[in-house]
Amino acid sequence: MRMYDIIVNKRDGLRLTEEEIHYFIQNYVHGKIPDYQISALLMAIYLNGMTSEETAQLTLEMVKSGDTIDLSRISGLKVDKHSTGGVGDKATLIVAPIVAACGLPVAKMSGRGLGHTGGTIDKLESVTGFRAELTVDQFIEQVNEKRLAIVGQSGNLTPADKKLYALRDVTATVDSIPLIASSIMSKKIAAGADAIVLDVKVGSGAFMKTFDEAVKLSKEMVAIGENLGRSTVAIISDMDQPLGYAVGNSLEVYEAIQTLKGNGPQDLLEVCIKLSSYMLLLGQLANNEGEAEVMATQAIDDGSAYACFLEFMQAQGADLQILINQEESLISKENCKIITAKHSGFIQHISASQIGHASMILGAGRETKESAIDYFAGVRLLRKPGEFVQVGEQIAEAYSTKADIGQALSLIQQAYIIGDHSIDQPALIKAIITKREIESRKI
Amino acid sequence: MRMYDIIVNKRDGLRLTEEEIHYFIQNYVHGKIPDYQISALLMAIYLNGMTSEETAQLTLEMVKSGDTIDLSRISGLKVDKHSTGGVGDKATLIVAPIVAACGLPVAKMSGRGLGHTGGTIDKLESVTGFRAELTVDQFIEQVNEKRLAIVGQSGNLTPADKKLYALRDVTATVDSIPLIASSIMSKKIAAGADAIVLDVKVGSGAFMKTFDEAVKLSKEMVAIGENLGRSTVAIISDMDQPLGYAVGNSLEVYEAIQTLKGNGPQDLLEVCIKLSSYMLLLGQLANNEGEAEVMATQAIDDGSAYACFLEFMQAQGADLQILINQEESLISKENCKIITAKHSGFIQHISASQIGHASMILGAGRETKESAIDYFAGVRLLRKPGEFVQVGEQIAEAYSTKADIGQALSLIQQAYIIGDHSIDQPALIKAIITKREIESRKI
Repeated sequence: MRMYDIIVNKRDGLRLTEEEIHYFIQNYVHGKIPDYQISALLMAIYLNGMTSEETAQLTLEMVKSGDTIDLSRISGLKVDKHSTGGVGDKATLIVAPIVAACGLPVAKMSGRGLGHTGGTIDKLESVTGFRAELTVDQFIEQVNEKRLAIVGQSGNLTPADKKLYALRDVTATVDSIPLIASSIMSKKIAAGADAIVLDVKVGSGAFMKTFDEAVKLSKEMVAIGENLGRSTVAIISDMDQPLGYAVGNSLEVYEAIQTLKGNGPQDLLEVCIKLSSYMLLLGQLANNEGEAEVMATQAIDDGSAYACFLEFMQAQGADLQILINQEESLISKENCKIITAKHSGFIQHISASQIGHASMILGAGRETKESAIDYFAGVRLLRKPGEFVQVGEQIAEAYSTKADIGQALSLIQQAYIIGDHSIDQPALIKAIITKREIESRKI
Repeated sequence: MRMYDIIVNKRDGLRLTEEEIHYFIQNYVHGKIPDYQISALLMAIYLNGMTSEETAQLTLEMVKSGDTIDLSRISGLKVDKHSTGGVGDKATLIVAPIVAACGLPVAKMSGRGLGHTGGTIDKLESVTGFRAELTVDQFIEQVNEKRLAIVGQSGNLTPADKKLYALRDVTATVDSIPLIASSIMSKKIAAGADAIVLDVKVGSGAFMKTFDEAVKLSKEMVAIGENLGRSTVAIISDMDQPLGYAVGNSLEVYEAIQTLKGNGPQDLLEVCIKLSSYMLLLGQLANNEGEAEVMATQAIDDGSAYACFLEFMQAQGADLQILINQEESLISKENCKIITAKHSGFIQHISASQIGHASMILGAGRETKESAIDYFAGVRLLRKPGEFVQVGEQIAEAYSTKADIGQALSLIQQAYIIGDHSIDQPALIKAIITKREIESRKI
């Protein structure tokens, strides 16, 4: 077998065989195929696509390229959750304790992030004392004792994906549905998931800008999951506007706590209950969606989700006194600038992409891997779409220790569209893609 | 400007700007853009194509990437000729002396070759004493004195093309019309051509397998020439069957001499007269094709072309005694194997690709750049299509110093298709593509 012929086949629109996919992934990861051949293949995949079978095979080969986490010492189904990322998306911090409180073991590996804010691990590390690095044994033991652990990626998981991603990033081949889908799914499967709930965001603040793209990606990922024996559901939700009020690491942890205590924003809660209920369904702890939603809601209402969160945070070293009193540290608003309404009217829309960009400028996110995050930086929205505001009224706060944040303040101002008429909010959950939705496809 | 954005644009099917083409060629040649980005772009070009304007710009930038030969000290138009390569194609050895004898200065740079036989330079070097390396001054002086010089590529011509070609060769992006066309045309223009006659071969023994492909490539090259102010004509001729009887370096020189002396094969002569007449037309030494053909034919008939050939060979060091008596060295047939007809009948067809492959195995061509050529190796056809042969009659000779040539002999045998019916020969010249044929295209 020669790499040259594999390129020819994909260039000519043929389906790659299992052997071909095995060959190029394993040889690439071992340094036996040069980048320039792989990048030609990636562009051919970008332009000619891959079938669901090829994509599943690619996923499997990326899993096989490195270590996998064995979660068999945790009894019951291990259901993982993954978000494609959005502005103000702190759902994991809420969903994980909800489902753990309902009895689902959650052994979650999360990433640090590039983008508007940090990833889940960055958010957790904004809490004093929190340790994201556990050994595999500690990780499994904590899940068995507390039902919940969230750690940074350890070990050499999916090195082929890391190498391919770095190459895609510089060859304009990131934005390909089969490549995105296999990258996400390989990481979840290598991390030991038996079943996966995907939170696919769509809109200006998300990677997928259109509903059609989001559906395509969702179907591709569900097809991979089903091809590889992992029950998978994708929930497509809106990311044209930020989720909740808080965008920024520490700000989001605080909002997550409020939500776990039953005082969270309605939109955030709705998404979290939906994600939780599908995790409970896939974990076979509920018989139908209605029952699962009742369980998830109950876990908020009876305080068990919040209790589970505190236990897990303490187990991983978080200082609970600081955590519980975090609002006070935020309220010392030395580094807070206020944004006010330019004119009176109903808020029509808040652009997630502009709030996200502002948040990055304020210091909440990383522009490059080497950037440092300011945990306390970010944006807090004070008013949301549908509400009426008077000119001059406070609509948002910007937190930053940077001097030059004029561009960020102006982005936040521009993000708010204020108009004359009251509006109806668009649906937050756009679609749910399950096995059923892909059964009509040839896979 | 960023290479990343150039890849995005071509990936998305956009037309690259002059600045973008300039940027990627000049930075690539100076080592400032890595191979893996260029190979992604090449695959995007392969799959999404280029307009004639982009292709002309690419050609120009490849010319500008290195040295160019200044032929202004030679008076008159400098008309170059290029063949896309075929089995038994020794036309340059005949055409160059014909047009030089008619008064057209021929300052020709030629290549060594990969493939069935060597390139023109390899063929010339099969003659004892011939020197292909002249300084630019010697080269120009010889053309001014003898009207004809043929040298190997000197200087650093089109380094961008060399670098791109090496990358295309390992990333399955060789076979792209705009990339082939710009590669050929850039070399001709860098070598100082004012006008270009292209000999585009089509058939099993050629790079272009179908007439449609040959027409596309021809139109693309003519469009480049016209876009860059070089009158260009492409003559599409048959390469389903070998041209002439001889395939192999020394064998072909001998056949060229026979042709210049008026004793050449009809098919070879027809192609050579056609190519010569278009060179004379583009060189403005004839007013129309009919007049040009008479001039070219006359140069054979009156011996002036042969005389010009001998003068030029002598000027470049060839031993004329050996050259003129070359047949004798060939006739000492120690290393000659005879192939005979398997059954009686009319020869229907001789496969150029099989004869070419046999010739390579016998030692006449290079498989890799490092291979050594055996000048005396090759195939001599004794009978050609349309002729009647008896079973057991000699139909071809194979020359080689190698021991194990069974496969080559069997290929030669298989190349001959013998059938019951007499046949009409297909037309040798398939089409002539001039400026007129491309004027209807948007260029």
